[in-house]
Amino acid sequence: MSTKDQLLMSLKAGKGSWVSGEFLGRNLTISRSAIWKHIRTLKDEGYIIESSRKKGYFLRQMTDSLLPNEIREGLKTNVFGKRDIVYFRDTDSTNIRAEHLAAEGAPEGTVVIAEKQTQGKGRRGRYWFSPSGEGIYASVVLRPRISPHEAPKLTLMASVAVAETILSLTPLRVNIKWPNDILVNGKKLAGILTEISAEMDRIHYVVIGIGVNVNMPCESFPSDIRNLATSILLETGEVSQRITLLRTYLEWLEMYYEMFSVGGFHPIMNRWKQLSDMPGKQIRVDLIDHTHEGVVQDIDEDGFLILKDHEGNLRKIISGDITLC
Amino acid sequence: MSTKDQLLMSLKAGKGSWVSGEFLGRNLTISRSAIWKHIRTLKDEGYIIESSRKKGYFLRQMTDSLLPNEIREGLKTNVFGKRDIVYFRDTDSTNIRAEHLAAEGAPEGTVVIAEKQTQGKGRRGRYWFSPSGEGIYASVVLRPRISPHEAPKLTLMASVAVAETILSLTPLRVNIKWPNDILVNGKKLAGILTEISAEMDRIHYVVIGIGVNVNMPCESFPSDIRNLATSILLETGEVSQRITLLRTYLEWLEMYYEMFSVGGFHPIMNRWKQLSDMPGKQIRVDLIDHTHEGVVQDIDEDGFLILKDHEGNLRKIISGDITLC
Repeated sequence: MSTKDQLLMSLKAGKGSWVSGEFLGRNLTISRSAIWKHIRTLKDEGYIIESSRKKGYFLRQMTDSLLPNEIREGLKTNVFGKRDIVYFRDTDSTNIRAEHLAAEGAPEGTVVIAEKQTQGKGRRGRYWFSPSGEGIYASVVLRPRISPHEAPKLTLMASVAVAETILSLTPLRVNIKWPNDILVNGKKLAGILTEISAEMDRIHYVVIGIGVNVNMPCESFPSDIRNLATSILLETGEVSQRITLLRTYLEWLEMYYEMFSVGGFHPIMNRWKQLSDMPGKQIRVDLIDHTHEGVVQDIDEDGFLILKDHEGNLRKIISGDITLC
Repeated sequence: MSTKDQLLMSLKAGKGSWVSGEFLGRNLTISRSAIWKHIRTLKDEGYIIESSRKKGYFLRQMTDSLLPNEIREGLKTNVFGKRDIVYFRDTDSTNIRAEHLAAEGAPEGTVVIAEKQTQGKGRRGRYWFSPSGEGIYASVVLRPRISPHEAPKLTLMASVAVAETILSLTPLRVNIKWPNDILVNGKKLAGILTEISAEMDRIHYVVIGIGVNVNMPCESFPSDIRNLATSILLETGEVSQRITLLRTYLEWLEMYYEMFSVGGFHPIMNRWKQLSDMPGKQIRVDLIDHTHEGVVQDIDEDGFLILKDHEGNLRKIISGDITLC
């Protein structure tokens, strides 16, 4: 543990009371100026610390940053986030960072977090709005022993994990829209982007990225997405602890991933169906060069959408943009 | 064009005759010592050039190296190899290099060549034997607008292109073994490794790598693969021009890729069936934790193998190691 972490631990241990500089100096065997340096770093990291010449230091408020050490504290997983959590205040895209790490051999369960993404990625090369400190932008590296053929199931798995997270921590009713959106009252609250590197019949690695709109106020959203997107703050009127949401997500994701490894896709598919109201809905599917319309029948065992078109034909929808009519 | 390339062109233009140093110096407006420097580089690249104080320089023999400029000369493709050919005397794996280039935006048709691979990749993390100057180790970057679901079709496409190449330049009878081997007399002559980077319903890029055993003499193969592998030299008794094989492969590959883009997979599948004698054969499929045995019925429209097991059940084989019984 670094001296800075020891210092932080001492402040946390003195919960709600002042900790004298003398005590800290003696305990950690560091100088007054070293204490000052570490306090400054902690403040930079978002911890709110008061200081007084007479009384010493007082940890007024924990940081709101998604710092690896804070995430790990109380994280009830076996693998995810237990070894490597890579943290960025600001990066291009957590998926891009996670892919680089995975290509270099990062193990399953490696987590990449950013406070802000400058090139947050949505599906199909689109942009994911990722303002600093207001959302969760996180990617997890997986190395499942499945064929690339089965990768779409992992997107549905992650959708279910995100939905469970929202359900377990907020009073909101969520709805999964195939393939990768989590809606609340018809607006986008979260999205999943699954990317894979594979050969024909073996996956090298999978990166599952999520973007969750947590504490964005209305004015935070650019005008072009204000009618399409929402945040937990906007829907509940309350600021949420991002770190609790993130931990809970990692726990749900690992739980469902273990379930998938042991019991296959069926339990996840069944839960997905409970969390999506798409079956029975009229939709339009826009593909590159044509459009399908029809009624959603189901998702099939591979995780694809089964559509009944107006002529009564059943179609398997593998990709495309879905509009609920 | 660089001065070195101009010098080479002058030597080629003087086909079968001496070109004087004076002529070269005047023509390219360079000094005697500059000529010497470039001649040395060309010799390093494998060109056999004689020199004489009196007569000048004589291009006795073209290089056997797969140099980009030489490949391009007479290459009858529209896109593949027309823009970027990246050449290595020695690299880890052409697929690894091509993936890096593709991740940084290399366009469709980018070709990576190596004389030698130190970590030549086979399927499922295996090793591909890649001694210097004796084989073709080449990777092509593709950016097809298909879903990852369809990627296995590209492996079969490349198998057909490799088979056509061998058929059109040698008297050998080839046989494609699903999913990615080209056999001659039951031994491995070439292999294909297709790797993809994708999201759920969109491919970012595909890298198709091939390894072809061209001019390996028997003693070149390590003892553990001597009974399993063969080369064009061993089968025909003749040394082949690797550059002609490579150009021909790029031409076939592009032809089939265009066919795939326009007409879909059916024509390729039909040709694949003509070039494979697997249907009707007894095989064993080894998976991670179990084994299937049976008779190959067909390949299906997605490029997967359909096996009829001893109980008469039809099974779709997506992956696994195939042994012909």
